[in-house]
Amino acid sequence: MPDNDTTVKQLRNSMRDFVRERDWERFHDAKNLAMSISIEAAELMEHFQWSRNEEITARLEDAETRQAVEEEVADVLCYVLSLANALEIDLSDAVRAKMRKNAAKYPPEKFRGRFET
Amino acid sequence: MPDNDTTVKQLRNSMRDFVRERDWERFHDAKNLAMSISIEAAELMEHFQWSRNEEITARLEDAETRQAVEEEVADVLCYVLSLANALEIDLSDAVRAKMRKNAAKYPPEKFRGRFET
Amino acid sequence: MPDNDTTVKQLRNSMRDFVRERDWERFHDAKNLAMSISIEAAELMEHFQWSRNEEITARLEDAETRQAVEEEVADVLCYVLSLANALEIDLSDAVRAKMRKNAAKYPPEKFRGRFET
Amino acid sequence: MPDNDTTVKQLRNSMRDFVRERDWERFHDAKNLAMSISIEAAELMEHFQWSRNEEITARLEDAETRQAVEEEVADVLCYVLSLANALEIDLSDAVRAKMRKNAAKYPPEKFRGRFET
Repeated sequence: MPDNDTTVKQLRNSMRDFVRERDWERFHDAKNLAMSISIEAAELMEHFQWSRNEEITARLEDAETRQAVEEEVADVLCYVLSLANALEIDLSDAVRAKMRKNAAKYPPEKFRGRFET
Repeated sequence: MPDNDTTVKQLRNSMRDFVRERDWERFHDAKNLAMSISIEAAELMEHFQWSRNEEITARLEDAETRQAVEEEVADVLCYVLSLANALEIDLSDAVRAKMRKNAAKYPPEKFRGRFET
Repeated sequence: MPDNDTTVKQLRNSMRDFVRERDWERFHDAKNLAMSISIEAAELMEHFQWSRNEEITARLEDAETRQAVEEEVADVLCYVLSLANALEIDLSDAVRAKMRKNAAKYPPEKFRGRFET
Repeated sequence: MPDNDTTVKQLRNSMRDFVRERDWERFHDAKNLAMSISIEAAELMEHFQWSRNEEITARLEDAETRQAVEEEVADVLCYVLSLANALEIDLSDAVRAKMRKNAAKYPPEKFRGRFET
């Protein structure tokens, strides 16, 4: 089931089941999960470390490279889902709240195409 | 709309609209977005940096702290959504594929409560 | 005293004194210090997040920006020094050992101007 | 030559020679080097990811584990040295300036054994 048909809750539940089946909740405290997100984010970044963006675009045409990158993105997201499970954060609400805050901070008419005023 | 009623695609679309309204897609190459995920992950980690887990649990009872943490989680997720948009990654498929791979690597009967065999 | 006249041990000792005067050694376990190095590294990276290298070079001409970047580099190094103090790692020996290993892995005649063979 | 007899400048020069022999300076812009510091910091953190500090202390008694950790610390430091070379930052001056600033921010009599007032 692709992103079109999958709720955030379904992804969270799949992750929770995976963790529970292995009795890994004992390791899933906030500190460890935040470290894990950061570690997986670095592994994702490593794929792009020494390349210019044009090279990256070309390399992502290669199916194997693309899959490796997708796996790293999945790793980051899996730990985000686990942290949401551990702390009972509603991710959809959190993302929308943050976007409302950022929408007020960066009104489109002032920030079109740039970050600073 | 909470996680129960929000598809991953809806979150991705909200993020895409936000970025497009500001003409920020020009900044959203794979390298910059991977850096951004990593930077936001570090800001999340910073909330737990010097505390033991019992202290963290206590501090998360405080509404203001909890909201600050939720905002950092949202920041990480927003950039994950943007990277999925930029590279056209189906996150639900990617997460499920990674979980199947990890399920084979870590069979529950061998890894219950621990990581190493 | 600049890098020319400062031994690595002198820097480590300055850092150790700073930490001891505040009785902060209790916080300086390996896990916390590794997190701290990672957090400061992300803050350093943040200065370069959305800019192309030509822009970064231009911005570093500004004295204030340059000082901010130097402070982030110093923050990373301070925690590296603290970790060396906590775990009793001789940094000079460790750097030289790693360079010998990398010299064998990347012989100049094969890796001049590139990473992959 | 251990930390006692090695100046920071000597370490920086060793690193510069290593990079020049491979004609790798072309890759060593500020953005790439900051990413590299962050990636190596995450690899260091990975060694401590799922363990409590008592376990970490025990594992560091093992010579192989200890060497692996020392190598990750060396990797972080090597990129810090390279960034100092690329941007011409005097690390000893930068560390001392930052410590003076932090000494003013955290007077020992107010911050003994804690971070917040």
